[in-house]
Amino acid sequence: MNMTLKTSLAACGLSAGLAFAAVAQASDIEDAIHYRQSALSVIGWHIGPLGAMAQGDIDYDAEEFAHRADNLAFLASLPWEGFVEGSLRGDGHGIDTDALAVIADDWDDFESRQQTLIEKTAELAELAQGDDFGAMRQQVAAVADTCRGCHDNYRAD
Amino acid sequence: MNMTLKTSLAACGLSAGLAFAAVAQASDIEDAIHYRQSALSVIGWHIGPLGAMAQGDIDYDAEEFAHRADNLAFLASLPWEGFVEGSLRGDGHGIDTDALAVIADDWDDFESRQQTLIEKTAELAELAQGDDFGAMRQQVAAVADTCRGCHDNYRAD
Repeated sequence: MNMTLKTSLAACGLSAGLAFAAVAQASDIEDAIHYRQSALSVIGWHIGPLGAMAQGDIDYDAEEFAHRADNLAFLASLPWEGFVEGSLRGDGHGIDTDALAVIADDWDDFESRQQTLIEKTAELAELAQGDDFGAMRQQVAAVADTCRGCHDNYRAD
Repeated sequence: MNMTLKTSLAACGLSAGLAFAAVAQASDIEDAIHYRQSALSVIGWHIGPLGAMAQGDIDYDAEEFAHRADNLAFLASLPWEGFVEGSLRGDGHGIDTDALAVIADDWDDFESRQQTLIEKTAELAELAQGDDFGAMRQQVAAVADTCRGCHDNYRAD
């Protein structure tokens, strides 16, 4: 069974032979960078329609809004485990990332901003269950400001 | 406020001016492909440690296993909206994708496989709440086989 499982797991995107607890090799670091970039892209996809509704570019659709907001609230906690040691700009290994080295120096602030995103998206998902679209619009802006605040500080232009 | 929101939303990864309901332009198709590839990569990241535990490459950690299984169960429904019209191999626009054109012909089967992944990951998350590690291992294999089945049929080698 193990060989079959190995083959099937490879189809899922990763070798099952990797030791995930200890990220040390260059390939592990590249995987972590690819993971966090992917998770952040998925977040971007789901916030897109929320922003478009908040701005009036597309009509407000309560079901769609709530669904996207739920997704965001879940996704907000995912990317951060990809910021492993040795994965920031200038850490060597020829890594390709916009994540600035200052993240390591400001780790507490970086974690605090992650927590803010988690909280603000949870609030958005809760608001999306109600009917106060004005409050939803304001909360979309608060979520978007959280994205921007982190990027302004920690992402290369 | 709108200009500020637009700037902040851009930081979240997408222009808020896009019309998400109607995917028609080449750039929209590229965004959809990037989204589904990102979502599938995120799935791969989370199944990795589950496979490693199932194979005995790393020690079973109940909390870690349950957390990854919960993530998988949530993520399993996400990638599919990225398979928009015009986004398969050979659909033109110079698109770069491994998703075979036959998906369009076999759409019912493709959707059925999505549903299977959603169900099997939900079962895994439920099993992960218990203490039958043998059943968890079997279910990881079932999830991995689901990945492989779809890739064998619908993804270019």
